[in-house]
Amino acid sequence: MTGEDPKLFEYIFNPSSVAVIGASENDAAAQALLKTKIRDRLFLVNPNYSEVRGKRCYRSILGVENQIDYAVLRVAAAVVPRAIEECIQKGVKVAQIYTAGFSETGIPERVEMERKIREMARGKIRLIGPNCLGVYCPRSGQSIAAESSEEEGGVGVVSQSGSVAESLSYFGKTKNLKFSKVVSYGNAIDLDAPDFLEYLADDPETKIIALYIEGPKDAPRLKAALNKAAGRKPVIAIKGGMTEQGMRAASSHTGSMAATPETWRALFKQAGALQAESFEEMVNTLMAFVHSPIPRGNTLSIITSSGGFSVIQTDLCLRAGMEVPRFTEETLDSLRRLVPIAGTSIGNPIDAWPVFSRVSGSGNLADVIQVVAEDRNIHSLVFHFDQFRYLRRGLGSKIGAHMKVLIDLIIKGCRYAREVIGKPVMICVVLDPHHDDEEERKYSLMIQRALVENGFPVYSNLDATIRALANLYRFNARLGRE
Amino acid sequence: MTGEDPKLFEYIFNPSSVAVIGASENDAAAQALLKTKIRDRLFLVNPNYSEVRGKRCYRSILGVENQIDYAVLRVAAAVVPRAIEECIQKGVKVAQIYTAGFSETGIPERVEMERKIREMARGKIRLIGPNCLGVYCPRSGQSIAAESSEEEGGVGVVSQSGSVAESLSYFGKTKNLKFSKVVSYGNAIDLDAPDFLEYLADDPETKIIALYIEGPKDAPRLKAALNKAAGRKPVIAIKGGMTEQGMRAASSHTGSMAATPETWRALFKQAGALQAESFEEMVNTLMAFVHSPIPRGNTLSIITSSGGFSVIQTDLCLRAGMEVPRFTEETLDSLRRLVPIAGTSIGNPIDAWPVFSRVSGSGNLADVIQVVAEDRNIHSLVFHFDQFRYLRRGLGSKIGAHMKVLIDLIIKGCRYAREVIGKPVMICVVLDPHHDDEEERKYSLMIQRALVENGFPVYSNLDATIRALANLYRFNARLGRE
Repeated sequence: MTGEDPKLFEYIFNPSSVAVIGASENDAAAQALLKTKIRDRLFLVNPNYSEVRGKRCYRSILGVENQIDYAVLRVAAAVVPRAIEECIQKGVKVAQIYTAGFSETGIPERVEMERKIREMARGKIRLIGPNCLGVYCPRSGQSIAAESSEEEGGVGVVSQSGSVAESLSYFGKTKNLKFSKVVSYGNAIDLDAPDFLEYLADDPETKIIALYIEGPKDAPRLKAALNKAAGRKPVIAIKGGMTEQGMRAASSHTGSMAATPETWRALFKQAGALQAESFEEMVNTLMAFVHSPIPRGNTLSIITSSGGFSVIQTDLCLRAGMEVPRFTEETLDSLRRLVPIAGTSIGNPIDAWPVFSRVSGSGNLADVIQVVAEDRNIHSLVFHFDQFRYLRRGLGSKIGAHMKVLIDLIIKGCRYAREVIGKPVMICVVLDPHHDDEEERKYSLMIQRALVENGFPVYSNLDATIRALANLYRFNARLGRE
Repeated sequence: MTGEDPKLFEYIFNPSSVAVIGASENDAAAQALLKTKIRDRLFLVNPNYSEVRGKRCYRSILGVENQIDYAVLRVAAAVVPRAIEECIQKGVKVAQIYTAGFSETGIPERVEMERKIREMARGKIRLIGPNCLGVYCPRSGQSIAAESSEEEGGVGVVSQSGSVAESLSYFGKTKNLKFSKVVSYGNAIDLDAPDFLEYLADDPETKIIALYIEGPKDAPRLKAALNKAAGRKPVIAIKGGMTEQGMRAASSHTGSMAATPETWRALFKQAGALQAESFEEMVNTLMAFVHSPIPRGNTLSIITSSGGFSVIQTDLCLRAGMEVPRFTEETLDSLRRLVPIAGTSIGNPIDAWPVFSRVSGSGNLADVIQVVAEDRNIHSLVFHFDQFRYLRRGLGSKIGAHMKVLIDLIIKGCRYAREVIGKPVMICVVLDPHHDDEEERKYSLMIQRALVENGFPVYSNLDATIRALANLYRFNARLGRE
């Protein structure tokens, strides 16, 4: 954009000082920022308090001695115009209007209020929002939630929805998804998706971009920004409001304009962005992109302990455009030596439950995974663990010691596949969140965390695992990157 | 079947005595049966032990004084023929061959061994299996897993796969899915899916049937049995091995014959059975059928605390053939009085997050759910809870007391919708199984369990919730039952 302050995104993602106007005990923005390294450069403003959570509270932003780069407005909608005026007077560079209740309500006076704020700000202060959670950047300490991780990573997020942005950072924590810059931008009366997309396209810390968008104010700019961003790094996008009723929902969520679903699909496709259809698919696909090498083709092997599930999942693979081919004769020969024949299958999927009980000597799980990894017909591996209660029945009190060795074997095999052979390894550790078997949960989480720490993508059901792998393959194949 | 012992299924599901041949300390069948009311009518057989888990162990089944109705064979494949001979000599009615390693291996001598066992048994003893887990029936104490619930219910299961049968009973426990009769029948050299389907079709304790099948030996009999069963009660079926590679996997799992996917789809459709494509879909759909009244049409309302997710999910509803229509003017008037306007939407979906914080006086969550339930444009309700961490940020240490009241309000509203208005209410309590926020887990499970105890179907993600509701609607609509 011409005439733009070259330091604009520094003020947003790495401000020298931040103010929260309308701070209070129970205000999520103040809570979050008080926990990060911004704390010492944070100024709380609220005429009703002299102190909030042990931090001095100013009556007005005009009373703060320091220069303020970035202000978060947590005041009631009716008070927003006056707060913006004071920010302008104070020389604040960017104001993020957390407050909702503007054009998204559809109420004419609220729409008009939003228009007036935009006019008031033009050329004097840049705005994010209204109706948004704002910015999370672990490197600088910008934060939208007290639970957010302080670890830096390569995932950038541009989200019109606050809960989508917040949920990505919240649920990303235990999936080893770490973030460079996250922004929730709401009604977008000034800064909009194209601004943030263009910035993240250039940002060296951002390796992959997640986008949730309901509707841009300026479609040609969005198209240009998407093309730029997706040309440089993977972009995984959800368009909220693809159907007529979804568009109505989007309109009352962020006051967005409508376009047809076909227009949106074409836009993403032409830009080379991957369109996800649900939040879960977005998270699962991000995990695959962040934690896996690119598959060199569409074939995979499933290594499991259940024949029935392996049959169901083979069907699912085919429907997702992946193949579950036969192993080579060499692989079959090796597997015949490793896997007992009764009740197992060394076809592909390989249903090798007795191997899960065998943790000493050769013919263990690491050996099986290594043999499969070496098969030239196989491009990716899916390792499925749903065996805990079966092992417990057979091992009784020895289960704890057994699991520790078994986890080491799984990691050994999977690392070999990924690091020596260079093939993606997707892990499924089945765990039902509503289940009440605490021992199964403990050991399932032990496997999940060990594998996450070793940099593998770990899912909790096979459907999600296979869909994420299929997305990883198809996206890269389309760009000629298999 | 002609010439069939009229008490055949009594021997299977309600035997007067059971033997486990090849019992040992770590054998899942003995472990499971020792825990149930069958314990006193259970006879363990293994020449290597005089006692297993505190229970006398016989050298041979011929040494048992009592008549044996049902024997579980846990011996090595090579020993199965002799064990069957002894069972015949002893006058055992039904032998379940747990042992695997027969035709599913594809090895000619193993195929031949299976054929010989079939010949040997013909007219002398009935067989289940080989390569199967057998029978679970809470009423009689028949069991396949030590963790199985002793509570009786109306779900019947016919599964060629042991792990599918076992997983249904295992994961059903915390979802209020209770079982009448479950059978895993494996390679089906004698008793096959049609036998069990016909029996469950007539069984008054079985209200709904889950079927997992890879391939029947006798297709016309399967068709007749399916028609009979699905004509009397809902049948939710997975055909394992729908694709060519899936059929190859099925063949090496249970030695099943192939038919084209189109043939199978037509078979299920003509019978009026609902075909599920994954295990998760089967479980989720069972929950909807067991716990919900039938929707009278395809419209629904989503009551949520997230605008972004409500937009995504509206799109998903439309793709699943459901509608998310506007509320009537009366509903909108009532909602305007109940829901603050800022940052919310009283369109449909209704994004009413401030209402989750308000637990005293009117305008609480129960009131909102009741108003939506009364809307004549709405046939079903989806209640989405993903609000815990937001509430905790605002409430701090008061969160525990707040949640208790909030749960009561949710139950009050949902019971009104289901019991007074007669509309299905599907619940989604978002919970990521791999997440490490133990406080969020504790309170999410508190909501989930309270709602499950009140007989509602509770899911852990919105996709699953909506797909299950769509299945419930479409299945009944097809049969003219909306």
